[in-house]
Amino acid sequence: MHSIDILVPSHKSKYSVLVGTDIIGQISKFIDLSGYSSVYIITDSNVARYYLDTVKDVFAHELHRKDIHTYIFQAGEQHKQLGTVEAIYHDLAEKRIDRKALIVNLGGGVVTDLGGFAAATFLRGIACINISTTLEGMVDASVGGKTGVNLGILKNYVGVFAQPKLVIADSNTLKTLPDRVLLQGYAEVIKHALIADKRFFEESIKISPLKMDDDMLLQAITRSIEIKAQIVQEDETEKAARKLLNFGHTIGHVIESLSMNTDKPLYHGEAVAIGMVAESYISYLTGMIDENEFETIENAVRNVQLPIRYIAKTTVKKVFEKLVTDKKTESGNIKWSLLMGIGVGEFNVAVDDKFVREAIEYILAP
Amino acid sequence: MHSIDILVPSHKSKYSVLVGTDIIGQISKFIDLSGYSSVYIITDSNVARYYLDTVKDVFAHELHRKDIHTYIFQAGEQHKQLGTVEAIYHDLAEKRIDRKALIVNLGGGVVTDLGGFAAATFLRGIACINISTTLEGMVDASVGGKTGVNLGILKNYVGVFAQPKLVIADSNTLKTLPDRVLLQGYAEVIKHALIADKRFFEESIKISPLKMDDDMLLQAITRSIEIKAQIVQEDETEKAARKLLNFGHTIGHVIESLSMNTDKPLYHGEAVAIGMVAESYISYLTGMIDENEFETIENAVRNVQLPIRYIAKTTVKKVFEKLVTDKKTESGNIKWSLLMGIGVGEFNVAVDDKFVREAIEYILAP
Repeated sequence: MHSIDILVPSHKSKYSVLVGTDIIGQISKFIDLSGYSSVYIITDSNVARYYLDTVKDVFAHELHRKDIHTYIFQAGEQHKQLGTVEAIYHDLAEKRIDRKALIVNLGGGVVTDLGGFAAATFLRGIACINISTTLEGMVDASVGGKTGVNLGILKNYVGVFAQPKLVIADSNTLKTLPDRVLLQGYAEVIKHALIADKRFFEESIKISPLKMDDDMLLQAITRSIEIKAQIVQEDETEKAARKLLNFGHTIGHVIESLSMNTDKPLYHGEAVAIGMVAESYISYLTGMIDENEFETIENAVRNVQLPIRYIAKTTVKKVFEKLVTDKKTESGNIKWSLLMGIGVGEFNVAVDDKFVREAIEYILAP
Repeated sequence: MHSIDILVPSHKSKYSVLVGTDIIGQISKFIDLSGYSSVYIITDSNVARYYLDTVKDVFAHELHRKDIHTYIFQAGEQHKQLGTVEAIYHDLAEKRIDRKALIVNLGGGVVTDLGGFAAATFLRGIACINISTTLEGMVDASVGGKTGVNLGILKNYVGVFAQPKLVIADSNTLKTLPDRVLLQGYAEVIKHALIADKRFFEESIKISPLKMDDDMLLQAITRSIEIKAQIVQEDETEKAARKLLNFGHTIGHVIESLSMNTDKPLYHGEAVAIGMVAESYISYLTGMIDENEFETIENAVRNVQLPIRYIAKTTVKKVFEKLVTDKKTESGNIKWSLLMGIGVGEFNVAVDDKFVREAIEYILAP
């Protein structure tokens, strides 16, 4: 088992992310549960089917009590809304959950974002731990303390920075993930490698995560979390270095959002994969990386079986306009997070419109 | 003008509470407004009538721009709900308020609690300042960082600890308050004196706040804020010393809540005044203070024109039962905040039921 400590400078505190196999059942080794008045598990309808009973049993057994509370909401990003949080507040109040309770968020990023926000705001904040059940959740949402919900279609417009007491990433939970869902989570692993660690990049792209054994996957998850942790510790509230994490996400967000109105919506990680190709291409066009490096990146993304092109009926103009509208700014004012080399990210880069258009054209080409 | 610095240990930061006359118009002397992308004022329908135009003009003038945004919600505790906050989120999004904006909460405790929560949670937190317009808001809500809303009838069930950049308490705003509203705010001043500062107690009860000139009132507000600040700094999240601030509130809350179903609902401060008499009486019955001290306190509360008895058709039994139900506990387990002397509070005190009943009987007697 790997344990990564995440420092939270603003609160002079830290918490651990535990990465391993068969660790959910051993939770009491990692956190002292005796001080909590009750346990309240928040999960969604997908995850509940596979893991809720197991996790409930673990807590019931550890705490020698049967009244482990649970709340299951309908799975899906469209339910990551204030209405769901409000329903949870009412349920918490009805069950007389007090300040000394422990909330357990069991699921992917939607569950930990939403459940983390509910925990941070109920009675002005009660303790929570996250049990991440998706690759994306483990390598991204588990670190950084961003919690929150969408406001209608506006992503993460409501939320707070709040840290869990502990994060558990158990590779067993990845085995029930559909291939496409596992794979898309791997985009963030590659991103972390590209912006910060060349050697890890070379290791991480040798084979597709779909073909990795447990050990390889755990290694990749651990290193990926370490990189994110280091960046986030330096810059807790995204004033500087944390912007590096936006690599691949500027164009990625645009095509993710455009794809929602087609018959082939992209997963977030798929859009980020294409976004990384586009933004690596911009890095190449502006002379920040050379052609070889760009090709290495593009081949790597393809080799792990992530998409490198956005296949849809659209035009450079449409994508570019959406980019400018989303950022609510002149395109020239967008601050890009790009690459100075493989393993070397750079933030706050200004880029000429023509390079952006060229990169969009590149990822739209068949 | 008096300036009190409030330290926020968990964030290694501080902010100032400014107490004075005619200071709203000089706001730019106290905070650098140049870095904010826009200003968004949250207020309620009562306060808007008196001060919104003035405050809007101040910011428009200081920032040399006319697009100062405003949001007015219906005045009253019953609107301190998530629905109001959600409406504000949508308005903030529609007006494209970004992370670099400044929210100005203009009003009493309901406005600063609710507006503070909206600011702390929109886009994971944007800066805010509070302009307190009630005595109660100045001496209580202005310090301590408690923000939040009610969940139906459950008071402050949803919220976060979040600190404003600055608090302004301008005595001019008190001149438009109805006498009864000003007076009830004074209960918290007396409470702060009783738990922490005997000399201030003696000063503060010489005459009713309704008869005080500006200077006297400003002195009382300032000292009251200093006391609360000191307690809150020691114990930001109410684990220990902050419990002292509950003096008068245990029985106070019960009779406030009971009075809501009568034709004579009490203001919060009025209920706290009666609660302080009851809890001083408990302190006397348990031998923590002597009879003289108790009489001094009771006379003081009466002399400043606050109520000392709860006049209503009820019984000791009803009040006692409500107390036990509210605290969701055996009465014997209630941790009381009482007095060891005038100016000396003590928290986590266990009290025999019979003293509690006797004290309830005392404040119900005509």
